[in-house]
Amino acid sequence: LTQLSLSSLGERALIQRIAAKIAAQLTSQPPWVLIGPGDDAAVIEPERGTHDVLTTDAVVEGVHFDRAFVPWDAVGYRALAVNLSDLAAMGARPRAALVSLVLPDTIGADDVDRLLDGLLALAAEHRVAVVGGNVTRSPGPLVVDVTAIGSVRPRRILTRAGARPGDEIWVTGTLGGAAVGLQILRGGGREGAEIERYLRPIPRIRAGLLLGRNRAASSTMDLSDGLGDAVRQIAEASAVGMTIDAASLPLSDGVREWHASRGGDPLASAMAADDYELLFTVRPSQRGRLRGVTRQLGQLAMTKIGVVTKGRDVLLAEAAGTRDLPQGFDHFQ
Amino acid sequence: LTQLSLSSLGERALIQRIAAKIAAQLTSQPPWVLIGPGDDAAVIEPERGTHDVLTTDAVVEGVHFDRAFVPWDAVGYRALAVNLSDLAAMGARPRAALVSLVLPDTIGADDVDRLLDGLLALAAEHRVAVVGGNVTRSPGPLVVDVTAIGSVRPRRILTRAGARPGDEIWVTGTLGGAAVGLQILRGGGREGAEIERYLRPIPRIRAGLLLGRNRAASSTMDLSDGLGDAVRQIAEASAVGMTIDAASLPLSDGVREWHASRGGDPLASAMAADDYELLFTVRPSQRGRLRGVTRQLGQLAMTKIGVVTKGRDVLLAEAAGTRDLPQGFDHFQ
Repeated sequence: LTQLSLSSLGERALIQRIAAKIAAQLTSQPPWVLIGPGDDAAVIEPERGTHDVLTTDAVVEGVHFDRAFVPWDAVGYRALAVNLSDLAAMGARPRAALVSLVLPDTIGADDVDRLLDGLLALAAEHRVAVVGGNVTRSPGPLVVDVTAIGSVRPRRILTRAGARPGDEIWVTGTLGGAAVGLQILRGGGREGAEIERYLRPIPRIRAGLLLGRNRAASSTMDLSDGLGDAVRQIAEASAVGMTIDAASLPLSDGVREWHASRGGDPLASAMAADDYELLFTVRPSQRGRLRGVTRQLGQLAMTKIGVVTKGRDVLLAEAAGTRDLPQGFDHFQ
Repeated sequence: LTQLSLSSLGERALIQRIAAKIAAQLTSQPPWVLIGPGDDAAVIEPERGTHDVLTTDAVVEGVHFDRAFVPWDAVGYRALAVNLSDLAAMGARPRAALVSLVLPDTIGADDVDRLLDGLLALAAEHRVAVVGGNVTRSPGPLVVDVTAIGSVRPRRILTRAGARPGDEIWVTGTLGGAAVGLQILRGGGREGAEIERYLRPIPRIRAGLLLGRNRAASSTMDLSDGLGDAVRQIAEASAVGMTIDAASLPLSDGVREWHASRGGDPLASAMAADDYELLFTVRPSQRGRLRGVTRQLGQLAMTKIGVVTKGRDVLLAEAAGTRDLPQGFDHFQ
């Protein structure tokens, strides 16, 4: 069980090991990757008639995950997933990624391998080419910073800014699974649907593509920082208000059951970070298009959870009355 | 002198403060930036007839800089410069950047402002649009991870892989300034040409563009990890050997004088990391093109420092004899 430590392996050897791993996974690089990993920079050919969509997000040990209960492959998986989720929210198709690893010497070379395995497995699922990156050591926590590049046709771009009063507010999938999964992990549990939701969230690439392609959404954002944050962001970018109907939030059976037996407010789980679903708004005139998207998506649920209002308040309507929508997760507080 | 701490400011407010700063600096976003900072991802229009060039590199406190003597603006400047230097080595024109900030709570909001000032000043100099990024807190050191995106015409791409036996080995500018500057900073010095070389290295964008445009180089790499590393990388990628002539390495007068008065081996400074010059090889038949590049560049020196060989050894030729070229800087050793 002895692992090579990073300092005994050396940076050059480590980079070669990582590059070899990436090369082995890509049985064939797509033809549009002209220069992959190993040069000063990567060179890719843009897809004709599309724009480049660019996003970057870092996953930091001790902030975004705890290595005591998040396996290394899930660390790598999540680092890419959070970025793919951002591309999904723009209606983009992911194409390539760059991976920046800031590694403490307390992580072994085999752990880095597993981290990359998780990242590369998700990349393969979505045909994302890992075209470059960099490795540096850290006197502090592990940081995995991924940049994802996608493509989108100009008229299919989804933004946060198009919601109008009278639009309906919708969400993909179910809410609360990630928060409950995290609680179960903290309590010592190691498997189950909610834990999977936390460890290996599914970026809603296909839903984003179909919403864009069918022009079925007036605004879109992903839920990685929580529902409260996403609703506020769309409201602010679109200069509208929003009222969310608490009773309509789509909790999974597992989330309901966990709260029924363990207590706590299911609403808090539904509002928590790390459900990588899409929040989007739909004009009344787009309802037919949305039905088309729903049919094409098949299994994935789509739930109406509220309405866009002219007044700028962001509210939560419950049986007991209406109040300000609680805030999302804030890393600095 | 009291600064807002990051935890009192809050992540959302901090992001808004950073976004406002970026927006203020970009008096007008270029027309090809369709969606800038503030959405789930940025959208940019590729330049017609060009490929995308992508690179990412992280600057880590305690590894790449010491906040005791590197001012915050220089931290930001260098984080972008290292990436622009990578684009230069591909013959690419930089267009856009994403900035990922991993911030310890020991950094104040004003410090973050200054860091961004330094980064944005260099971005403005090269007309680089900062189109996005993200902010997260860190229980450890500051990490600034920048992704830079450039464009290059297909036939003008410079790589590490084209050197052939008989090619000449050249380098831009002078060597050793960054290493000497770092020594002077460590000794308490705070200004001078060498310190500037360390704190605010000039990425050789124009040299890279001209080398690519004139097809004057058979291979190119930047020197950010040191001459020993760059020579080895080109030799390996091109499956050739290289012999560097120690006496021809272009040391600046300041570097010579510092070593004359303070001792130490000037060769060690010339081989150290952080001189952001370009190393490139030139076919004998390309000499005329290189002269054209030199004329167009004006002030920037170009010096022949060795030859490409058929035998795969990477050597340093000195008056005392020939030996293996010393290694470059390795973060893990």
